[in-house]
Amino acid sequence: MTEVSNSMTSHVSQVSDGSVTSAKGFRAGGVYAGLKTPGRTKLDLGLILSDTPCTAAATFSRNSVLSPSASLSRETIKAGGPVRAIVANSGCANCCVGAQGFTDAKEMVALAAGAAGAKPNEVLVCSTGVIGKELPMGVIREGMPKIRVSPDGGHEFARAIMTTDSRPKEYAVSVKVGGKTAIVGGCAKGAGMIHPNMATMLAFMTTDANVAQSFLRKALVDAVTVSFNQIDVDTDQSTNDTCILLANGAAGNSPLKGGDNDSHLFAEAVQSVAVHLAKEIARDGEGAKHLIEARVEGARNAQEARVFARSIVSSPLVKTAVYGRDPNWGRIMMAIGKTEIPIEESKVQIFIGDIQIVEGGIAIQYFTQSVVAALGQPEVRLRVNLNVGNGAGVAWGCDLTEGYVVENSAYTT
Amino acid sequence: MTEVSNSMTSHVSQVSDGSVTSAKGFRAGGVYAGLKTPGRTKLDLGLILSDTPCTAAATFSRNSVLSPSASLSRETIKAGGPVRAIVANSGCANCCVGAQGFTDAKEMVALAAGAAGAKPNEVLVCSTGVIGKELPMGVIREGMPKIRVSPDGGHEFARAIMTTDSRPKEYAVSVKVGGKTAIVGGCAKGAGMIHPNMATMLAFMTTDANVAQSFLRKALVDAVTVSFNQIDVDTDQSTNDTCILLANGAAGNSPLKGGDNDSHLFAEAVQSVAVHLAKEIARDGEGAKHLIEARVEGARNAQEARVFARSIVSSPLVKTAVYGRDPNWGRIMMAIGKTEIPIEESKVQIFIGDIQIVEGGIAIQYFTQSVVAALGQPEVRLRVNLNVGNGAGVAWGCDLTEGYVVENSAYTT
Repeated sequence: MTEVSNSMTSHVSQVSDGSVTSAKGFRAGGVYAGLKTPGRTKLDLGLILSDTPCTAAATFSRNSVLSPSASLSRETIKAGGPVRAIVANSGCANCCVGAQGFTDAKEMVALAAGAAGAKPNEVLVCSTGVIGKELPMGVIREGMPKIRVSPDGGHEFARAIMTTDSRPKEYAVSVKVGGKTAIVGGCAKGAGMIHPNMATMLAFMTTDANVAQSFLRKALVDAVTVSFNQIDVDTDQSTNDTCILLANGAAGNSPLKGGDNDSHLFAEAVQSVAVHLAKEIARDGEGAKHLIEARVEGARNAQEARVFARSIVSSPLVKTAVYGRDPNWGRIMMAIGKTEIPIEESKVQIFIGDIQIVEGGIAIQYFTQSVVAALGQPEVRLRVNLNVGNGAGVAWGCDLTEGYVVENSAYTT
Repeated sequence: MTEVSNSMTSHVSQVSDGSVTSAKGFRAGGVYAGLKTPGRTKLDLGLILSDTPCTAAATFSRNSVLSPSASLSRETIKAGGPVRAIVANSGCANCCVGAQGFTDAKEMVALAAGAAGAKPNEVLVCSTGVIGKELPMGVIREGMPKIRVSPDGGHEFARAIMTTDSRPKEYAVSVKVGGKTAIVGGCAKGAGMIHPNMATMLAFMTTDANVAQSFLRKALVDAVTVSFNQIDVDTDQSTNDTCILLANGAAGNSPLKGGDNDSHLFAEAVQSVAVHLAKEIARDGEGAKHLIEARVEGARNAQEARVFARSIVSSPLVKTAVYGRDPNWGRIMMAIGKTEIPIEESKVQIFIGDIQIVEGGIAIQYFTQSVVAALGQPEVRLRVNLNVGNGAGVAWGCDLTEGYVVENSAYTT
């Protein structure tokens, strides 16, 4: 699975109207509690609930300044017990608020445990929004009991976690494992401060497959490596990045433990959901007009290929060139080289869309208007073949426009 | 010298109208050869010449894609012989053009050697401008003999290396060493693709001090570490970054070899010129309206302090917050944490200008209008005390405005 497939295989099929509650036995909901200005998106507090205890895996931001909400969830995951519920709020990151942040995160967990009929150590908590402001616990205390969870509530939850997102990000697939059909569904949020490391802003995935804890962890980490860790909006890494995968076993398959074909199919399903959600975050980047997909082939190995690909989509000069439909491929070469990983310049091929513009490291003749048209597509594909090995990797970003500057130069005050 | 002083000491004094030819025995000049569209800045080919052979030191970009001009100069420096001249062009980076790039760089050196009356292995070459286009050798052959070098020609040379720069960047200081007064002067260019590693875009420094080769190298590397390597415009690292320091010994002092007080004073003079030029590059960042200075104190050591400081000035969210005069200090915390270097959040103090806004890692009361006013200054000073050690470091950047996006979304085509 070093190569990322964008299309479904015959074994993994998209579920229509998919959400984080597409898998059997999961319910969710959201309310407007009052953490955000009303109007933009009406919901700001959400709950995901499993009818039965789940095996859980999660990854968190590596930022040295970590939100107490994420820290508390990390501790719960580390303890290794079953998980029943996830509570999440938008409008406030619960970060850089001192000891009060832990007190509030614990209270949110206790409130959610009460609403869910679960124990506090079975509840994970996530927060997203402005850094440096305390959680308004009064409105959270009032709002929590008003959440009505339902099997269709995944869509509501996806809206409850939005901040500068222009739309919810949801997806689900089905996969046949052990003679049973299992679902993997999920949702995510994020539009700015996006350059995740080990996880993204907030992403929630659920499955009714029966999965052993250690393999669930491996499937999640492998999926995050090629999805959320390969996107970029602005090179800024959040303090609250969290990605959670819950498995409740309701599909009734015998437990997936890795090393067999069914486990491989399940991992593929998780990856397809993760990649879809990650691309949705990149596509919805603040101010973005284009999704940029950078595919690097012929690297010495997959890990280096991913580093090259991410460097391309992270470069402000590549981002602005795409925005301006400018086939300034020298910026792609610069972005490859700034990784400081050695390449053989004389072997490099570059394609924009399906049009080759560089061969042997230098420009070749092409019809400029065709390339400009390829740069005008909603999805701009940049492909580089380094021709020194077999490693391939993909990353996704978005263009940098005046909209990003406007949105972020007037955010809190 | 781990702490960078912004003010001159009593030993190092600014030279009025300083340039790369302020030191005795250096001449320079520039012409419009025809590499750039005429009008914006009229000059595009420049030459620096020393009347006598110089000891030389230089640093180059670590980008894996390196301009043949920089590669050739790196070889010449590595050979260790004396240097007599530097030729530089703007308008074309001579990068990603295959073997032709080396042929052209060698011819440029040969042409400059002819004009300077020097041997080719005594001439360094630098190029800056668009990547992926071959040098127009015809106009360079015609232009080179037209360059008239003079002791006042440093200003002309500084203009000849400009690309998107809005103004030339020049500076010189004097320092007393071994009973003689020596000058260190320099010029630099750069406004975009600025996130140097081991050197900056193009920076040229000359001195008439008599300096031993090994100490000259050390003085340059130490100065670059706290100056050009601490600036950021857009996190993109150029393929052509070069910083050269020539010493011709015309001041007549006994050779500086390091380890004594005079050597220390000379290193201080080099650093003061390097810091001044580096700040000028950050100040003139594409679209910039503010110079941002981030000073991090109380880190465990100077190296970590510099990493923190540079992460702050490199963050698009900090850059846009400064542009919007938004005291969104959570973004400063995020930028510190995204280095993934451990800190003690509860000890962090943050100041904007002279106003403290964070104590013990959380917000304190302050008069918002005063902070907004501090963010409106041409030089915005951000200061962080981590209170875990004695390491201090400074970095310089600029704000991110719509101007950067506009300028870079319509550059080549």
